[in-house]
Formats: sequence, structure tokens, C-alpha cells
Amino acid sequence: MSYELYYWPSIQGRGEFVRLALEEAGAAYVDVAREPEGLAAMMRMIDDAERPPFAPPFLKDGETIIGQSAAILLYLGARHGLAPKDPAGGLWTHQIQLTIADVVAEAHDTHHPVGVGLTYEDQMSEALRRAREFRDSRIPKFLNWFETILARNPAGDGHLVGRSLTYVDLSLFQVVEGLAYAFPRAARRALKDTPRVAALHAAVARRPRIEAYLGSLRRIPFNQEGIFRHYPELDA
Amino acid sequence: MSYELYYWPSIQGRGEFVRLALEEAGAAYVDVAREPEGLAAMMRMIDDAERPPFAPPFLKDGETIIGQSAAILLYLGARHGLAPKDPAGGLWTHQIQLTIADVVAEAHDTHHPVGVGLTYEDQMSEALRRAREFRDSRIPKFLNWFETILARNPAGDGHLVGRSLTYVDLSLFQVVEGLAYAFPRAARRALKDTPRVAALHAAVARRPRIEAYLGSLRRIPFNQEGIFRHYPELDA
Repeated sequence: MSYELYYWPSIQGRGEFVRLALEEAGAAYVDVAREPEGLAAMMRMIDDAERPPFAPPFLKDGETIIGQSAAILLYLGARHGLAPKDPAGGLWTHQIQLTIADVVAEAHDTHHPVGVGLTYEDQMSEALRRAREFRDSRIPKFLNWFETILARNPAGDGHLVGRSLTYVDLSLFQVVEGLAYAFPRAARRALKDTPRVAALHAAVARRPRIEAYLGSLRRIPFNQEGIFRHYPELDA
Repeated sequence: MSYELYYWPSIQGRGEFVRLALEEAGAAYVDVAREPEGLAAMMRMIDDAERPPFAPPFLKDGETIIGQSAAILLYLGARHGLAPKDPAGGLWTHQIQLTIADVVAEAHDTHHPVGVGLTYEDQMSEALRRAREFRDSRIPKFLNWFETILARNPAGDGHLVGRSLTYVDLSLFQVVEGLAYAFPRAARRALKDTPRVAALHAAVARRPRIEAYLGSLRRIPFNQEGIFRHYPELDA
């Protein structure tokens, strides 16, 4: 039976971390909200489920509904060989994903530092200040942490955890993609100091299933509605 | 052997969600950074660990180091009867905790909407706007979600998951405590519409181990350094 992924149909957003794992796993899935009537079905599930997700994305696997992208990846990673089998390694992988969720939330807040209920234009002066902090302080701090993890991985610096691909490698790829789209200048500066992160990003992009996915219509282009948005004034 | 909890020694912060679980479990633990030389030991672990946490809190259990409060609770919940034993229930509990982590991050950002590298006074005008969004829109949205979960729990509305206490009940208690401290007026308004959340908060406060903990010196009082801070101008 196919997985059902529920996420906003016009953006990569947080759903993209799940899509990348499903694609790399070669798992059958339906991106429900991109199907006819799918968006209405998604809203009904949020309204009516006994265990309602707070927000998309959520994944339905038979009767199980799982919200929060990091929890979805915890679930998928164990089922598709995208996480270590030992409990400590699985938890370490999840911990990295939770920190990726933190950087994603901060990237979002660069253009919405006041609140999601307002437009970017309504909070642009706040955004200019928050984006400067994010570029100058947070992007380097996060990317340096990933670089350290790669450098200290006893199995080699080609992967964040162990000797083979896990879902956090895919997620870090997506973070780098997003930062390079939204903050091309700041990302280029930070990646100069984090060559292992840059190399992992390039290696993930060359994986056959990921490469095929990125070239397909299933990959929604970055745009000005998602988490990562390119406002040149925020990348000064 | 005792657990070792590593967190900033002068605030409740994100460490408090872990402390509450350890206290309710009656688990032996050392709050390392509150011991002599403990803060230096914490910083050394962040600098030197093969699997370095991005930030406190982190928990050491023998050779295992776990960062991210939600991951720590996932680990502790399974070991101390503070989470359902069935995998779907465990994942649902974790999903709720991840959403609690989201509201905690948003509560923090009310006083630091631009960045953690600046003081509150340096970002007060941004804080006034963000706090208004948080009070008017986000607090009700989050508390209503918890209320819905309680109302739909097939085992009764006394707990978020199942028929007995789990770590997310403790964490929701702490969220309500924090909101009531930081935003007394807004919290009071929202809790009027979420009576099950208010009742759960009161019930957790009466649990013998929690009551003893709250009355002890181990419970650090709320203050103006933590996640939840009371600036009257942000609770207009």
C-alpha cells in the first residue's frame, strides 16, 4: 500500500524533507494535496482526526497518522534503511534532524519575524534585522556544527552518521539547497568554511534517485511562498 | 547509575521539561551545571564530544549522550513508564512534544524576535509586534489544539495520551506555567476557552513528586533570563 503524504501543494517547505526520504527509498507514495480534491481531504483530516496533526506535513501509513517532519523521518528511516539500526545511532540521527528543524524554523522567521498572520511586506523592517543576524551568526553556527559532525564521524566524513546514507544527509542537502536559494551570498561565504558540508550536498545531488527526482515535475521549484524565499535585500 | 543532565544552571528553560520527567519518574540524576565546575564540564562536552549536542539541554546515560529536549523525553519516556508502550502511541506522544517544542520556541522569540545575539532592549519594538501576534493568535491556536487532543482522547480527557500520565502531560503543565508567568493576562483569557488544559495543569501540580519538586530548591524560579519572561509591555 502507498504512503499518503499530506502537505501544501505549491511549496517545498517542510514537506520536502519527507519527499526526499520517500524518493531516495523508492517508496510508493501519493502527494495527496497535489491530487484533485486532495487539499480538501488534507484539511478534513486536520479537522477530524482522533489524533489531529497541528499542521502539515503529515504522513498516513494505513491507520497511522504521523505529524511533524522529524517524527515522520524517524518513522520512515527505520523502515527504509535510512537510519542506523542501533538505538543510540537512531537517536543521534533524530537529534541531528531536530536541529535541522530548528535551522529551518529560523530560516522561515527571517521573512516572518513578527508572525505568520502578516505578509512579508508588513514586517520587512523587522525582517532586515533578523536576516542580518541569521546570515552573520546563525548560518555559520549551524553549518559549522554539521561540519564538525562530519569531521568527527569515525566512519568517515562522507556522511553525518555511519558509513552510509541516512535521512539527515538528505535533509542537510535540502537545507543547503534552501540557503543557497534564499541567501546565495551568505551561503557561499559559509560553505567556503564548511567544505565537508558542501561535498555532502554535491554527493546527494548525484544520487540517481535524487537526481531523477530533482529533474522531475514532482520537485516543486523554490518560490516566494515557501520556507526558503529569495528577497535580495535579506542577503546583503 | 545516575543520569547526568546538562543545562544552564540559572534558568528553567528547555531543561525544565527534562527535569520534570526525571522528577516524576523518581529517577536519580545530577543537574551537572549546578554543581561546582559543572558549567565548565558542560562546555567541554559541547566542544569535544564525538557526537556534540548543538546546545543544552543534553542528557548523559552511561556512554550515551542525547541532545534536544524532545529526543531526551522520547528516551526517558520509554524507560520510565512515561509513554505508551505501543509504537504508534509512542510516536503520537513524541509528535505532541515536538509541537510543544514549537510553542516554546515561539514564546522565546516574543522577547528575541531579531536574534539571540542581541538584548531584549535592543529589539523591543520588534518584540512588541511579535508578542501581540503570539498573544492574539498563537497562544489560542496552540492551547486549542491541546484542548482538542484532550477532548478526543478515547481514554478520557484527563490526559493527552491514554489513561495515565505521560511526559507530554508534564510538558503541557510547564507550558501553561510559563505562559501564565510571562503573559498572565493573555494566558488567563486563553485558558478560559480551554478548561481541559487548565484542569490538566492543576492535576499535574498536585502530583506528589511534582508538588515536592516545585516546593524544593531544585526548582529554579522563573526569571528574566529564561524562555518565559515577564515583560508587562508584552502582555498588554
